[in-house]
Amino acid sequence: MEHKKIYLAGPEVFLEDAVQLAERKKAICAAHGLRGLFPLDAGLDLSGLAPQAAGLAIYEANIALIEAADACIANVTPFRGPSLDPGTAYEIGHMRGLGKPVFAYSNAPEHFAERTRLYCAASGERDAEGLLIEDFGLTDNLMIDGAVMRAGPGIEIDKSGQGWHGLKAFEICVRRAAEFLATV
Amino acid sequence: MEHKKIYLAGPEVFLEDAVQLAERKKAICAAHGLRGLFPLDAGLDLSGLAPQAAGLAIYEANIALIEAADACIANVTPFRGPSLDPGTAYEIGHMRGLGKPVFAYSNAPEHFAERTRLYCAASGERDAEGLLIEDFGLTDNLMIDGAVMRAGPGIEIDKSGQGWHGLKAFEICVRRAAEFLATV
Repeated sequence: MEHKKIYLAGPEVFLEDAVQLAERKKAICAAHGLRGLFPLDAGLDLSGLAPQAAGLAIYEANIALIEAADACIANVTPFRGPSLDPGTAYEIGHMRGLGKPVFAYSNAPEHFAERTRLYCAASGERDAEGLLIEDFGLTDNLMIDGAVMRAGPGIEIDKSGQGWHGLKAFEICVRRAAEFLATV
Repeated sequence: MEHKKIYLAGPEVFLEDAVQLAERKKAICAAHGLRGLFPLDAGLDLSGLAPQAAGLAIYEANIALIEAADACIANVTPFRGPSLDPGTAYEIGHMRGLGKPVFAYSNAPEHFAERTRLYCAASGERDAEGLLIEDFGLTDNLMIDGAVMRAGPGIEIDKSGQGWHGLKAFEICVRRAAEFLATV
């Protein structure tokens, strides 16, 4: 039987040890009978491409992996601000638009409103620009939490402080994905 | 003939004058023969709901509007960090997963790499955490630019410094959407 495929979304692609971390994630997937697809797997040859064309080639390659996947596990740990990496947010949306399940985890302990207030140095309902501070007791923007709650109990939080390299919550998501995909 | 519907994505929902700004956007849509759908249009009654349930009800209402829309015009002006609002990033992805065209504009003049370096106080290829600073000469993360380039020339930039209330680039997107939808 062919293994079900999991698109591994997250800002790990930006780490210097991205490939090694992806190998660890794929090994965890394999231990649960799943095959992990990592954005860098496409092995694109970008040489000779102008910067914008290179960026678009990566977009197309990622979309091909997303379309090939049966589910997504997204790392929504806050990235340069109170929220997740915007590329990951996009990919969660694309998966949901395709009707596929999304599982997600965060290695940051605070809730979204708490992080946003810290970021904005605000204590009330709005920031200094008058923009509302979303506060529904969720982990990130409600579109992200909502998407993940369609396939399970919501975003899994790891409070052990291992930053980008902690995979405890990731493994819980892999187990959830394996159970979910066994039923469809 | 029924007007084609445009989902109006963006962090305007967080502004104190969100409804007034939405009315201005809808009037511009109407002037081009289109009907704008704004997230707050659902007129949800959230009274009596616990915070998380209220957040999820908003998610479901937004998804219903996204599914009803023929296209999306997204405000990708940077929001609390170097990138767009993560809810908007999600919605762009959901629209693309549904195969629908996405148009987008930003009221910030700088390119993504420039904003990110400023945010990270970094001058080289990586930030202090060792995370790469994406630099393809694009407006935001390549997944966002890539999605928008599928339906046109890319993210429209307004450099006139009108912040959240500038609608010059938005109107250009409305024109593009009207032309695009007239051909399908």
